[in-house]
Amino acid sequence: MIKKISHIGIAVENLEGARKFFEENFSLPATERENFGELLFSFIGFEGEGTQLELLQSTTDGGQMAKFISKRGPGIHHIALETDDIQAELDRLQAKGIQLINPTPYRNAHQELVAFIHPKSANGILIELVQR
Amino acid sequence: MIKKISHIGIAVENLEGARKFFEENFSLPATERENFGELLFSFIGFEGEGTQLELLQSTTDGGQMAKFISKRGPGIHHIALETDDIQAELDRLQAKGIQLINPTPYRNAHQELVAFIHPKSANGILIELVQR
Repeated sequence: MIKKISHIGIAVENLEGARKFFEENFSLPATERENFGELLFSFIGFEGEGTQLELLQSTTDGGQMAKFISKRGPGIHHIALETDDIQAELDRLQAKGIQLINPTPYRNAHQELVAFIHPKSANGILIELVQR
Repeated sequence: MIKKISHIGIAVENLEGARKFFEENFSLPATERENFGELLFSFIGFEGEGTQLELLQSTTDGGQMAKFISKRGPGIHHIALETDDIQAELDRLQAKGIQLINPTPYRNAHQELVAFIHPKSANGILIELVQR
């Protein structure tokens, strides 16, 4: 079952600049910057109260966000939907012919189970499923 | 004051197909399709409980979503932040040198006051402010 829209992932060139933009202009709080593999990230908004923004910066030119930005410019990258049973969702979607990037979930920096659905199967939207 | 992330606008080629995608695959409810000028739109998700998705389809080739899709493909178009005083936000942002698309808000299909901030001033993100 989908519980809510968990967050919106945003590819940024400069994480600190983007954090400041949301903090200074909209008083939206940011979490401490974290590092996971080649990604720097920080969440913006109110935890537990609806959807947050996830700012994502690659630390290498070949990183996923850097590649996205060189192709499309900085901006919105994906939407994450929270589910209570990610494997059941993935199995159900796959059985319906929906193309999955990750048929098996993996653990993110916060040890949550996550998996992505291919935008080709989702109206051009990169959808992440996340189980906390 | 920003109260929450109100919705995420998504440019789609086929509103009915996109509605069905979210309803059938994620059991996310959709509002009735509405028509406003050259736009067809429908909201996906749980009203009042956090952020919704706003599906947007142009009814003419020259429409805003059709132009966006011909340039970037279908997908996420903007993020809307809900505020309790849109004119105060706009005045404050403008005084800080943030580029606004609409320095004065206008009324949308639901008679809410809305205005857009230019992506150039917002890390590549098209941000809508909305006052209900």
